[in-house]
Amino acid sequence: MELKKFIRDIPDFPEKGIIFRDITPLLKNPEAFNFAIDQLVNKLKEIEFNTIVAPEARGFIFGGALAYKLGKGLVPVRKPGKLPYKVISEKYSLEYGEAELQMHIDAISQGEKVIIFDDVLATGGTALALKKLVEKAGGEVVSMAFLIELTYLNPRKLLSKENIISLITY
Amino acid sequence: MELKKFIRDIPDFPEKGIIFRDITPLLKNPEAFNFAIDQLVNKLKEIEFNTIVAPEARGFIFGGALAYKLGKGLVPVRKPGKLPYKVISEKYSLEYGEAELQMHIDAISQGEKVIIFDDVLATGGTALALKKLVEKAGGEVVSMAFLIELTYLNPRKLLSKENIISLITY
Repeated sequence: MELKKFIRDIPDFPEKGIIFRDITPLLKNPEAFNFAIDQLVNKLKEIEFNTIVAPEARGFIFGGALAYKLGKGLVPVRKPGKLPYKVISEKYSLEYGEAELQMHIDAISQGEKVIIFDDVLATGGTALALKKLVEKAGGEVVSMAFLIELTYLNPRKLLSKENIISLITY
Repeated sequence: MELKKFIRDIPDFPEKGIIFRDITPLLKNPEAFNFAIDQLVNKLKEIEFNTIVAPEARGFIFGGALAYKLGKGLVPVRKPGKLPYKVISEKYSLEYGEAELQMHIDAISQGEKVIIFDDVLATGGTALALKKLVEKAGGEVVSMAFLIELTYLNPRKLLSKENIISLITY
């Protein structure tokens, strides 16, 4: 199945000069959504790990389905002020602007093996911030998985030491 | 399985006097998360519908897993400015404050049968706004499903005509 047929390009969103890859048509089509999840499951099922860490908001959609199918736990990472318990934070710069992510302080145990999942790998800034959060908590990132990788933004330069999995590349 | 054991009460979040039901321990535990999804799937699988509509952010976690397992499409509903294509909007009041939700204008077809999913049913304000969005687009809400229902906030008063499914009640 050609998953790119279900991704809509939106020029100049959220800022001029950015092409936003809109995955809502893929989510809406049951065959395409199931195919995308199953392909990611196939890539992740041989990896030994305990937990999927995913950032809000679109990361949650795939993170939830992958955690369910793979029988793993899910740790949500959120923007400041959203998590109700004590948090650890990481500030970072992303494709357009600056941001901060938070994770519950008790979300990851010492030595826990973690896969980071996000829908889009752009500059790699968000992925690196997620990794730092996991490591602050004592966890180990064994792989980073993405639905879409924007190779023209060179994310693998920033993430040169990571084991990166992506399903769709632009 | 007693799912309430995996839900942590956080007093005075996000505002004084509110008890926040923190589902992150449930998400983190693979058995509890899988059990919750499977119980929801059992309640939804006999209903004839096309699409799950879920709001950001926690609604996406379960919405993604349910859409995958049930073989349905998922329509994400988001806060203003997050969706990249043309949107329809609905303003509403919620347990603490005011809010607005948006859905892509082409997300739901005329006559499409929809299930709304959110993690928590509190006053019912968000659920009602989601229903109005679906109906603006020409869809029909055949059921509303929730992981948690806060019965002490009387949501069924506001949603008296809806077919409501909830897994855990307080």
